[in-house]
Amino acid sequence: MPADVTFRTATKDDVPAIVALLADDAIGSGREGDVDAYWAAFAAIDADPRNHLIVADVEGEVAGTLQLTFIPGLSRKGTERAQIEAVRVGSAHRGRGLGHQMIEWAIGEARRRGCGLVQLTSDKRREDAIRFYETLGFEATHEGMKLPL
Amino acid sequence: MPADVTFRTATKDDVPAIVALLADDAIGSGREGDVDAYWAAFAAIDADPRNHLIVADVEGEVAGTLQLTFIPGLSRKGTERAQIEAVRVGSAHRGRGLGHQMIEWAIGEARRRGCGLVQLTSDKRREDAIRFYETLGFEATHEGMKLPL
Repeated sequence: MPADVTFRTATKDDVPAIVALLADDAIGSGREGDVDAYWAAFAAIDADPRNHLIVADVEGEVAGTLQLTFIPGLSRKGTERAQIEAVRVGSAHRGRGLGHQMIEWAIGEARRRGCGLVQLTSDKRREDAIRFYETLGFEATHEGMKLPL
Repeated sequence: MPADVTFRTATKDDVPAIVALLADDAIGSGREGDVDAYWAAFAAIDADPRNHLIVADVEGEVAGTLQLTFIPGLSRKGTERAQIEAVRVGSAHRGRGLGHQMIEWAIGEARRRGCGLVQLTSDKRREDAIRFYETLGFEATHEGMKLPL
């Protein structure tokens, strides 16, 4: 059974724990570094009403994180879409349904806001993650194409 | 040879032409409707400094459109990513390199802004579009997962 979890907007004090979660990951570990690089990005997210950096707080600990971005658009009769990025669950909290709770929570937020669609991309090497999202109702109908600059 | 093209931010006057482009498409045609549904969405995009609705203007005509969204994030040492959505080229303007110019332009904007990554998703049924993005350097490393609400 998952522990009691609270979803809340991240504060500046959560940034080191979030960066640690981003680095504690087979694919992401080579990409993350010193926490100083992250303050400006945190301030940009925090100031933007369409971007929400979320932490899953379990007994005062940052057990998981995700970012929710609401993207306005003309397509689909002008309905907003919700995008989920940077989903991470701390290794000590895996396998107990926390990821499921986090994504269900994000879908609920998107629904409450009136979004027409929730979208995310998942690295094709993360086969478990892709299956996990499929159990939550997502379908891999699109190619997620990336161009690093 | 492509005609002379100007890329500019869409104005309210462009909305009917953009909606016509969204509807003039095998997959999108069933999803679009009366232009009245689009005004609020246009106003939301227009007011958001991280969202840019762009038209490719060829001799005063809206020949193509795309939306560029800049998403701040902590991942990858806090670099912003650029996302391209709602890419359409008018049927009278296809096959002459306009789409290529549009995406190259968007990549250039992302680079100028200092983004670390450009990303988009493309419906797996649009095989030509996927090959086209690959020629521009994009790689289909991710599954693009969607959950309509």
